[in-house]
Amino acid sequence: MTRYSAVASRLGTLIERGTLRAGDRLPSLRRTSRREGVSLTTSLQAYALLESRGYIEARPQSGFFVRPSAVRSVPEPLAAAPRRGSVRVGLAALAMRVLEGAQDPSLVPLGAACPSSGLLPARKLARFASLHVRRAPAEANSYAFPPGRLELRREIARRAVDWGGTLTPDAILVTCGATEALHLALRAVTNRGDLVAVESPAYFGTLMILETLGLRAVEILTDPRDGLRLDALKEALARHRIAAVVASPVCHNPLGTTMPEAARQVLVALLARHRVPLIEDDVYGDAHYDAERPVPAKRFDRDGGVLLCGSFSKVLAPGYRVGWLAAGRYHARVSQLQLASTLAQPTLPQLAVAAFLGSGGYDQFLKRMRGTYRDQVARARDAVARYFPEGTRVTSPSGGFVLWAQLPDGIDALDLAERALARGISVSPGPLFSASGGHRSCLRLNCGHPWTPRLDAAVRTLGSLARSPGGS
Amino acid sequence: MTRYSAVASRLGTLIERGTLRAGDRLPSLRRTSRREGVSLTTSLQAYALLESRGYIEARPQSGFFVRPSAVRSVPEPLAAAPRRGSVRVGLAALAMRVLEGAQDPSLVPLGAACPSSGLLPARKLARFASLHVRRAPAEANSYAFPPGRLELRREIARRAVDWGGTLTPDAILVTCGATEALHLALRAVTNRGDLVAVESPAYFGTLMILETLGLRAVEILTDPRDGLRLDALKEALARHRIAAVVASPVCHNPLGTTMPEAARQVLVALLARHRVPLIEDDVYGDAHYDAERPVPAKRFDRDGGVLLCGSFSKVLAPGYRVGWLAAGRYHARVSQLQLASTLAQPTLPQLAVAAFLGSGGYDQFLKRMRGTYRDQVARARDAVARYFPEGTRVTSPSGGFVLWAQLPDGIDALDLAERALARGISVSPGPLFSASGGHRSCLRLNCGHPWTPRLDAAVRTLGSLARSPGGS
Repeated sequence: MTRYSAVASRLGTLIERGTLRAGDRLPSLRRTSRREGVSLTTSLQAYALLESRGYIEARPQSGFFVRPSAVRSVPEPLAAAPRRGSVRVGLAALAMRVLEGAQDPSLVPLGAACPSSGLLPARKLARFASLHVRRAPAEANSYAFPPGRLELRREIARRAVDWGGTLTPDAILVTCGATEALHLALRAVTNRGDLVAVESPAYFGTLMILETLGLRAVEILTDPRDGLRLDALKEALARHRIAAVVASPVCHNPLGTTMPEAARQVLVALLARHRVPLIEDDVYGDAHYDAERPVPAKRFDRDGGVLLCGSFSKVLAPGYRVGWLAAGRYHARVSQLQLASTLAQPTLPQLAVAAFLGSGGYDQFLKRMRGTYRDQVARARDAVARYFPEGTRVTSPSGGFVLWAQLPDGIDALDLAERALARGISVSPGPLFSASGGHRSCLRLNCGHPWTPRLDAAVRTLGSLARSPGGS
Repeated sequence: MTRYSAVASRLGTLIERGTLRAGDRLPSLRRTSRREGVSLTTSLQAYALLESRGYIEARPQSGFFVRPSAVRSVPEPLAAAPRRGSVRVGLAALAMRVLEGAQDPSLVPLGAACPSSGLLPARKLARFASLHVRRAPAEANSYAFPPGRLELRREIARRAVDWGGTLTPDAILVTCGATEALHLALRAVTNRGDLVAVESPAYFGTLMILETLGLRAVEILTDPRDGLRLDALKEALARHRIAAVVASPVCHNPLGTTMPEAARQVLVALLARHRVPLIEDDVYGDAHYDAERPVPAKRFDRDGGVLLCGSFSKVLAPGYRVGWLAAGRYHARVSQLQLASTLAQPTLPQLAVAAFLGSGGYDQFLKRMRGTYRDQVARARDAVARYFPEGTRVTSPSGGFVLWAQLPDGIDALDLAERALARGISVSPGPLFSASGGHRSCLRLNCGHPWTPRLDAAVRTLGSLARSPGGS
């Protein structure tokens, strides 16, 4: 991170967390320079960045102020108590509609969590793919049996060192995105009919896997600020025979939350004590907004009970479908399951992504991308604050590119999403993220696209649809 | 097919089927020219081709003769009665070893059924991949959600017209090779504990799927010449509650057999009457040796009960992992299962294969490739005849690139494969193709590589290992 963006990031956090409120005057440039130990120019660049992201505004002769309609004017959602007991899941049709929405360019893409392809380094990836396939066409056309190409596994293991991970290439299985990783992980540690603890809300892909594998979900209360509630998890472990926990402690989807590091540590220790495997969905981890990469729970794993699922789909290469699974003590089992279910992953995408990672381009790119995502989320948040009905709450994500809005009670998100679709807007209704049809008044908004008047108008339309009676 | 290769093919069949026997003199060039209505040059080319494939030899001043040790001197294997009742399957470790053998260049590649990469149009595919990814990098980096890229599904549907198929692009799901197709098909039509009828011997990938899904196999007697025995299948349908049949009526692996067309028709009608779905593995169908493409059983499907699994892995692009599934009345179900298990297949391999197919290069290439495979199989067959112990039987494949050898009773193929591996030779032992550990005296030989002295020496070594007592 450059110096000025580090300064901007710290000030931005003060605004997001409510320390600086709408209308508050920011410290003078001189003061900030002194405090942060940077030049005046650097401070000015930091303020300009915050201004461009919609956090602050300059008033002539007066200095910089937090914008009136800025991010903190809408409170965060409250944790919504999920249904007690375990439930069967049934979401496929709803999910299919949202995913199809992402492929229809006539729709406003606030539904599926897809980054705008224009933001991704598609050209650079293409150069690596092209170079590889032309230089070694026969290699690209040879099977890469499990665990997958060593070049790629080496790069993944190398990157894990950054967060203190001790993954070896041998412990990593290359998968078809994080979806195959989650699927193999769940198949490895459960049997049909088993109970699996999931966050509430949870990524709908996970819920669909439970559905198709005949697993039952135990929903665990999850706080929009602090993530999975350990007290609720403990209660569930005492009450039920839980076969596995699926959780996303870092940059949760749809909440954008990161559990405090101490809580991540307790989570791993708790589950180890119960001998319950933790399937960790770390898909958005690289898209954090912090200065440092938040440490995946896998870092605290001592007995191989954490199955870490990663992917390059959310920040680099959705179309390449390169994910991975570090399955700890279940490594042999997941490899066997993959052999029988997909046999091998295509070689070329693995080689292209490995070359990109090896070139060092990824870290540079991530730095820029995190700022971009954060900016886009801030703008969407601002639009929600302006257009959504009084009483709306919205998350303050610590990473990723989705927002979770909780509309006033009585507003039915399923109905709202239907009406939005009729107006050419794709959104993800809250019940998609619940095993039991909960979160009925919530919406998830994809912020993977640069902010445009079209997006602004779409959020305004969503707001007025939410205000108008249903069934239009 | 060129005129001379058509002539060679007819004469080759006469030799394979035993009409012309070792030492028999072939008709003179003049006579053949007259009979076939071709020029003398064409006849000479045909004879030269047969000579290069090891079928015949020229004797100075005397003409052409069937080679003494040629193909027909070893009889075909007998159908081996499988275990009655249903069995649990347990093959993963054995399969992993065979597949790993294919990736170790120090081993002689007679194990896994992998074509030599040098035979495949890797360069041409690479050009298409490179072109596509450079021309439209953002497209290659966008999700291709189920059912997969339309360009590819159109080409697959178009090709089905050639065998009288009426597949529409909408009815096709792009998969990660035929393995994902078979896996999704089995998941769609069965539940854990169900009984599935399979051929004996059967492709070990299918058996591994049964194993990992907790399905039980009912093995059906399968004839090395005529394929799945319908009388045995009828008996199994009467005796058991069969949830599905998995079969490979065209170019079976490992037997190389194609069921007579009438039998394929009866098979479909029989299963439709019992309302039992047929999962058809057509992976080697394009590698047939006949003048016309043998018609998949799917052609006779009237109620959508046939789930056709295809792939480009065996004749074009192993490393691209492009397969497909036409699941008939189960299409919605398999799409849903794929969404939850792999979400989407990588875009670039789909686009590259579609471009290759669209260019018309595939048919030309297939024509050549079929001759190559046939030649390689003939040479391996010849080597088996020369080196394997008296009493060995070997298949006379109608397509594909594997041979199935049945050694004299008492020879343990598992032990033989172990000892071969110690000598640097990878082979697939018979029990890998049985759900119940049967076919103990059989070996499958991969003939996907051009014949070399190294391969010849390896078959000789296998022969002497088979003769020597085990446990060396």
